[in-house]
Amino acid sequence: MTTTMAKAPEHKHMITSTKRGSVQRWSQTLIPTTREAPNDAETPSHVLLHRAGFIRQVGAGIYDYLPLAWRTLRKISDIVRDEMDAAGGSELLMPALEPFELFKDTKRDVDYGDNLFRLTDRRGRTNALAPTHEEVITELLRGAITSYKQLPLTLYQVQTKFRDEARPRAGLLRCREFIMKDAYTFHMHVEGVGGLNEAYDAMYRAYFNIFTRCGLNFTAVEAESGPIGGSASHEFMVNCASGEDTILRCPTSGYAANVEKCEVGDRGAWTFDAQPTGELLEMHTPNLPGIDEVGKVMGVKPARMLKTIVFQVIGPAGGVGGGAGAGTDELPKWILATVRGDHDVNPGKVKALSGCALVLAPEKEARAAGFAIGYVSPRTINTVPGTLLLVDSDVAQGGFWATGSDRADYHVKHFNWRREVGAKLDQPGYVKVGDLRNALAGDPSPRAPGVKLETARGIEVGHIFKLGTKYSDAMGLAIMDDKQQKRSVIMGCYGIGVSRTMAACVEMSHDADGIIWPAAIAPFHVLITLMRPESQEHMGAAQRIAGELSAAGVDVLIDDRDERPGVKFKDADLVGIPVRITIGDKALAEGAVEFKVRNTPGKGENVAMADVNGRVLAALAS
Amino acid sequence: MTTTMAKAPEHKHMITSTKRGSVQRWSQTLIPTTREAPNDAETPSHVLLHRAGFIRQVGAGIYDYLPLAWRTLRKISDIVRDEMDAAGGSELLMPALEPFELFKDTKRDVDYGDNLFRLTDRRGRTNALAPTHEEVITELLRGAITSYKQLPLTLYQVQTKFRDEARPRAGLLRCREFIMKDAYTFHMHVEGVGGLNEAYDAMYRAYFNIFTRCGLNFTAVEAESGPIGGSASHEFMVNCASGEDTILRCPTSGYAANVEKCEVGDRGAWTFDAQPTGELLEMHTPNLPGIDEVGKVMGVKPARMLKTIVFQVIGPAGGVGGGAGAGTDELPKWILATVRGDHDVNPGKVKALSGCALVLAPEKEARAAGFAIGYVSPRTINTVPGTLLLVDSDVAQGGFWATGSDRADYHVKHFNWRREVGAKLDQPGYVKVGDLRNALAGDPSPRAPGVKLETARGIEVGHIFKLGTKYSDAMGLAIMDDKQQKRSVIMGCYGIGVSRTMAACVEMSHDADGIIWPAAIAPFHVLITLMRPESQEHMGAAQRIAGELSAAGVDVLIDDRDERPGVKFKDADLVGIPVRITIGDKALAEGAVEFKVRNTPGKGENVAMADVNGRVLAALAS
Repeated sequence: MTTTMAKAPEHKHMITSTKRGSVQRWSQTLIPTTREAPNDAETPSHVLLHRAGFIRQVGAGIYDYLPLAWRTLRKISDIVRDEMDAAGGSELLMPALEPFELFKDTKRDVDYGDNLFRLTDRRGRTNALAPTHEEVITELLRGAITSYKQLPLTLYQVQTKFRDEARPRAGLLRCREFIMKDAYTFHMHVEGVGGLNEAYDAMYRAYFNIFTRCGLNFTAVEAESGPIGGSASHEFMVNCASGEDTILRCPTSGYAANVEKCEVGDRGAWTFDAQPTGELLEMHTPNLPGIDEVGKVMGVKPARMLKTIVFQVIGPAGGVGGGAGAGTDELPKWILATVRGDHDVNPGKVKALSGCALVLAPEKEARAAGFAIGYVSPRTINTVPGTLLLVDSDVAQGGFWATGSDRADYHVKHFNWRREVGAKLDQPGYVKVGDLRNALAGDPSPRAPGVKLETARGIEVGHIFKLGTKYSDAMGLAIMDDKQQKRSVIMGCYGIGVSRTMAACVEMSHDADGIIWPAAIAPFHVLITLMRPESQEHMGAAQRIAGELSAAGVDVLIDDRDERPGVKFKDADLVGIPVRITIGDKALAEGAVEFKVRNTPGKGENVAMADVNGRVLAALAS
Repeated sequence: MTTTMAKAPEHKHMITSTKRGSVQRWSQTLIPTTREAPNDAETPSHVLLHRAGFIRQVGAGIYDYLPLAWRTLRKISDIVRDEMDAAGGSELLMPALEPFELFKDTKRDVDYGDNLFRLTDRRGRTNALAPTHEEVITELLRGAITSYKQLPLTLYQVQTKFRDEARPRAGLLRCREFIMKDAYTFHMHVEGVGGLNEAYDAMYRAYFNIFTRCGLNFTAVEAESGPIGGSASHEFMVNCASGEDTILRCPTSGYAANVEKCEVGDRGAWTFDAQPTGELLEMHTPNLPGIDEVGKVMGVKPARMLKTIVFQVIGPAGGVGGGAGAGTDELPKWILATVRGDHDVNPGKVKALSGCALVLAPEKEARAAGFAIGYVSPRTINTVPGTLLLVDSDVAQGGFWATGSDRADYHVKHFNWRREVGAKLDQPGYVKVGDLRNALAGDPSPRAPGVKLETARGIEVGHIFKLGTKYSDAMGLAIMDDKQQKRSVIMGCYGIGVSRTMAACVEMSHDADGIIWPAAIAPFHVLITLMRPESQEHMGAAQRIAGELSAAGVDVLIDDRDERPGVKFKDADLVGIPVRITIGDKALAEGAVEFKVRNTPGKGENVAMADVNGRVLAALAS
């Protein structure tokens, strides 16, 4: 699996459907455009979807999807279904209500915490409103399959999800009720035909196709799998300046990852060998909240300080990474991870480099073992038995360093690796050097020598996970393999925020006047504005054009409202239909109409009636 | 609006779609057929939908819709959408979560009682899971429309609904989470272009088309509007012996109504004038639970007893019916309704005949006024002031009658109307004779002289209501009319149980071996069974046939499982795909396949490969 960045795919949308397009009159549907934005609206999509009459708030994080929004959501869903089916998926629908007992074995009620809506029914039983359906589908499969012959299997649904967000905000971007496509795959093995990896790759391609077909500018990034668990994961991010997530990408290779996952490329040679910069000098640094404040008191920049985090080992890393250390084949008890004071330790990288599963060391136990938490230096490798020291490449260098003094309220200056740590530095069982920190813009690309990583902002609209056997182990989904051995089923899960995709598209594609829809997910392709709706001639011309366009599969909205032309033109820009045709007396007298593409600046141009169809189809395909 | 009974529409389903049909391999989807029925399954649809792998229970009244069910549900929904759009509707989607304050003005939280799922969110606010959306859409419209120019409007959604049923049962027929289409129309007037009646008629036709296109044998019946409120209502019932509702219909005129609504035709002449059958004889009848037991003690059949129910008047009936009575223009305080002992008083008919809105008399108040509740006779017209006596035509007759004695624990024999009630019988302000009871099979048809009503059983799948201004009054949805007067918006509401329709279809159309799907809503049209799935020749032939059928818009399922042919044939009958094609060595050697229509008894016949396409299309259209 290569991670790829979609380089601003063109919004190409050939109308290839043989289905007749819709023709709708504005006066006969509900498009309540307004100049007022909601009081709490901060993001463009929230403001514009409300103002353009796509959504109305019902409660905190709960929305009506009005007819225009529903048309766009249906178009997104249709593209999703098309690609899911092409990837071998079968659609089903699971319920929103889940008996609470379903969480008994997976304990996700605890993981979700207050985000899980709970309700007690008339019989006093507790139910949840499903935030996702891993438990329901694992339970379903447990009762429905018995043999490896029934696998692999890809099942998906497009369904309403519920999460009691602490801070619902940004309109459809963070809701309490929203539409999601969730897919689940089931396998007996990871590699080869019918395995998890094959399905994961097929889903990756399907997601790539879906977001491309929706007309989105997006990036597929490597991601940590997070609380859902599992071993591999990609996020699909719509690129836009207002995005809430930061991603890092290599402009040359297309490599992209989120901050937690991004590798840092080769940072050149490192050596612990360098002469001390001075005598080790201990300084009193009590009651300081963080490394910046310590640096100020000591007169040292954070970039010249060592930050050492203590982890407790809880087991082997589970197949990932090499053997563990601490001088023996035994697992270490403790891991120290040292990075630059202005960098952040990345637990995933600590796990990968150490080969150990770990947690942040519980303070009490760590103190009892001999770690002066808050003032730890790499020297403790020599004083606490069973400790493995991991050093980030950036600090495995000589020169001036400040660090903790291994006793409370004190730091030291002129820390020298050779002088302070000594012989164990050369023993790989005790010390390892590598990539331990979160990546930053300007870091070397891990895929292209000499190229620097860049940051970009995005909105997550899709996420795919290799789950492994997390759920099947917890819930006992095990079936007979071809050797009559009972084995846990291997799973993957794959989500798309359908309503979020609509909002992300608006974030990505709008201007000061309103939304600019990509043709593929525009609620209508063409808006015909009547200057004089009471004129039978105007309406007749509109209906002729609409009829022809509809026969070609184009969806047409006719603005037949009894409103001033200025109001209609403002609304047209706001609603963002890709092509606008205006029917007025002057052009009509010449057998023409005014033709304007939403995403093209300036005034429209007159187009002869006979050429309208061709111009529309060309505009929609460009 | 004429009420019409659809006389067993033929299951005609022309494949006219230009869309390619689906081709699915059984081994690649989830169809968990089983011989076991759920323990609590009593109805055919519950048993068969489970056994055929369409549904699995998740909790009480909560189901997974597996891929076959979801295909059928999508086909039903598509037909619904098609007809709703043709009737001028715009689709939207409203949320399942409703802030509880929305019920403040309509008080439907009280009407729904425990049927309403309630939940408290993390901020301590109460929400409901919407059982229907009258409040949400009235609130939406209140914020979105301001002028009569924006009406009429028809909005609909296909959405998941929640009701905490006391006794969820019968699989999908009575669920706690189910799929419903609900539509709402908005008007400034009832009659004429753009009025409620026009929309109601359009909806009636749309419903007729929907259930006809789905291949259902159904009856449209007149109904009481029930707790939703409003002035007119029709139910659409799928005809089937296992139906939970009883309907009455006239075999000649097509008139049909549910028991609560059904009129009884002319029952011939009536007269109170007849000689007494004997002296009025009082009998001691203490502690008897009902009229049957009283009859036994008295030696009288219930058909010769008078049953008199006391109602309390709460106001005028609201435009319906004539003026009230009790000898003045004032409303009466009390209404007595007398019917035969073996008949049931129909409150709707009491309301219509009296012209009064009423409730069952509260016992304490009625006793205080002078009614010996449980022993009331029509004589009390003479003793309690402000009383109006309504007499059902069947008992406004001479002959022998027994009735209550107007004192506790006593009844009388030889009740004679003239002798016991006297002069007030002839005063219309005091006494009215008419249709007061529920209709029964054998009653005269109200639409065809000399014809008798028949009973039939059905399952309600659709219900349409003229709501009037119930919700707009309660919630303040009023806008300017063309005379700049603010007026309440007039509404209609229209529901279809989508998941219920699927189950009702199975109740209507199955045999001992399984389901028999009408082509229009069958999950697949054709099932191709491979006798030897491992044979490349068999699979090749199946794929050629499937490819051709798919190009013609036919959906094909290929049973490629490694199972014995007997298992596959049993499953084929169970799942109920309309056409089955079997590919085996013998026929294939002759360039043929076995062809069988599910709904035709006996064995299949060999059909030459070249003729398969035509035979399939003909079978599906028949």
